[in-house]
Amino acid sequence: GERVGIAVIQGILAANDAQAAHNRAHLDACGVLAINLMSSPGAGKTSLLEATIEALKGDLGIAVIEGDLETENDAARIRAKGVPAVQITTGSACHLDAPLVHRALHRLDLQGIDLLFIENVGNLVCPASFDLGQHRNVTLLSVPEGDDKPAKYPVMFRASDLVLCTKADLLPLMPEFDPQRAQRHLQALAGNLPF
Amino acid sequence: GERVGIAVIQGILAANDAQAAHNRAHLDACGVLAINLMSSPGAGKTSLLEATIEALKGDLGIAVIEGDLETENDAARIRAKGVPAVQITTGSACHLDAPLVHRALHRLDLQGIDLLFIENVGNLVCPASFDLGQHRNVTLLSVPEGDDKPAKYPVMFRASDLVLCTKADLLPLMPEFDPQRAQRHLQALAGNLPF
Ligand SMILES: Nc1nc2c(ncn2[C@@H]2O[C@H](COP(=O)(O)OP(=O)(O)OP(=O)(O)O)[C@@H](O)[C@H]2O)c(=O)[nH]1
Ligand SMILES: Nc1nc2c(ncn2[C@@H]2O[C@H](COP(=O)(O)OP(=O)(O)OP(=O)(O)O)[C@@H](O)[C@H]2O)c(=O)[nH]1
Ligand SMILES: [Mg+2]
Ligand SMILES: [Mg+2]
Ligand SMILES: [Zn+2]
Ligand SMILES: [Zn+2]
Repeated sequence: GERVGIAVIQGILAANDAQAAHNRAHLDACGVLAINLMSSPGAGKTSLLEATIEALKGDLGIAVIEGDLETENDAARIRAKGVPAVQITTGSACHLDAPLVHRALHRLDLQGIDLLFIENVGNLVCPASFDLGQHRNVTLLSVPEGDDKPAKYPVMFRASDLVLCTKADLLPLMPEFDPQRAQRHLQALAGNLPF
Repeated sequence: GERVGIAVIQGILAANDAQAAHNRAHLDACGVLAINLMSSPGAGKTSLLEATIEALKGDLGIAVIEGDLETENDAARIRAKGVPAVQITTGSACHLDAPLVHRALHRLDLQGIDLLFIENVGNLVCPASFDLGQHRNVTLLSVPEGDDKPAKYPVMFRASDLVLCTKADLLPLMPEFDPQRAQRHLQALAGNLPF
């Protein structure tokens, strides 16, 4: 039982990694930098993408792949900013995987795209274990979640290249959130990970 | 590949369900009502437990099982309220399962306990699929996550017996959160689920 289960899981991860390498080669051939955006549900991934598009769309070609269990809402928000977006709906799966992203890539015209954002399913655990072919992982930590999240959900923060603190406007209302304590937790996990 | 994977997953869920039935029989024999508390990371599960213990501990015997990837922090917070707590650390697993809860049950003295809270790993997807032997599921939706979470993470909300809205003190700062819209999303999923 358990040994067969572990073998199957290792097989799934190996197949995922092979597909992720193909995705990355595909992106590299098209000169596209891909960023995998991860966080808890509602930490502000789509809001950050909306603001980033507003700031960069004059200078860079941007496209977005959206991951959610259900609804096209996030893709619609991105398209409203004038940027192409493909929505993946996973049904009940708690993370994107490389085959899902591969199918989405083939629905995007990468001609003229410099920067591809992949918004993962909101989940501070599972998405960290599935390579999608991205070049960088960016994780959001929102102030209302508490400064202890890196200590309590370490797998995700260890996998991150950059951690962004969102909803900082709520800091005056959440005096228990100490950005320096969050940073100390992060450094304990991942050395000088930028925060 | 895929078919073996599905068979293994079905086998894991069937074994989990059998263990959950055993847990429930154990709890029933001891006259304990068990509540599985689920939410996104940091939505306020432990804070709600602290307040609930404060309100009920004179009248009821309470115990808590805490689930986290790492740290004993939440169990320590509960013990500081004078209530017995067992911490489960899952390492990298994104949810509790019935065997983990079974082991924790045998570390608790259920003599004199009326109410057992099981705080699941913060995750709005996977915990919904694993029966632990609980009698009821309570899910928290915190205001800063946004009122669209039931529509976007439906599996969890469909599995809930009660949805509690937390961090309502932040409503004045998050005028985009419309409690009635959240309730409409919930009703579309789960009829007259109490909210
Ligand atoms: N106060 C405050 N609210 C914010 C900020 N960024 C996002 N929000 C709010 O947070 C809620 C969720 O924002 P989204 O951008 O949809 O979050 P998300 O991570 O994309 O959510 P999912 O895709 O559903 O997991 C919404 O109500 C936003 O208005 C911020 O910087 N400050
Ligand atoms: N403003 C406000 N903050 C709250 C409320 N409830 C909890 N918090 C804060 O939210 C953060 C997380 O609270 P916790 O109770 O630890 O949340 P949790 O769901 O147990 O978190 P994990 O177990 O790590 O997933 C902390 O900073 C709390 O102080 C509330 O009603 N209002
Ligand atoms: Mg989003
Ligand atoms: Mg907690
Ligand atoms: Zn291809
Ligand atoms: Zn999962």
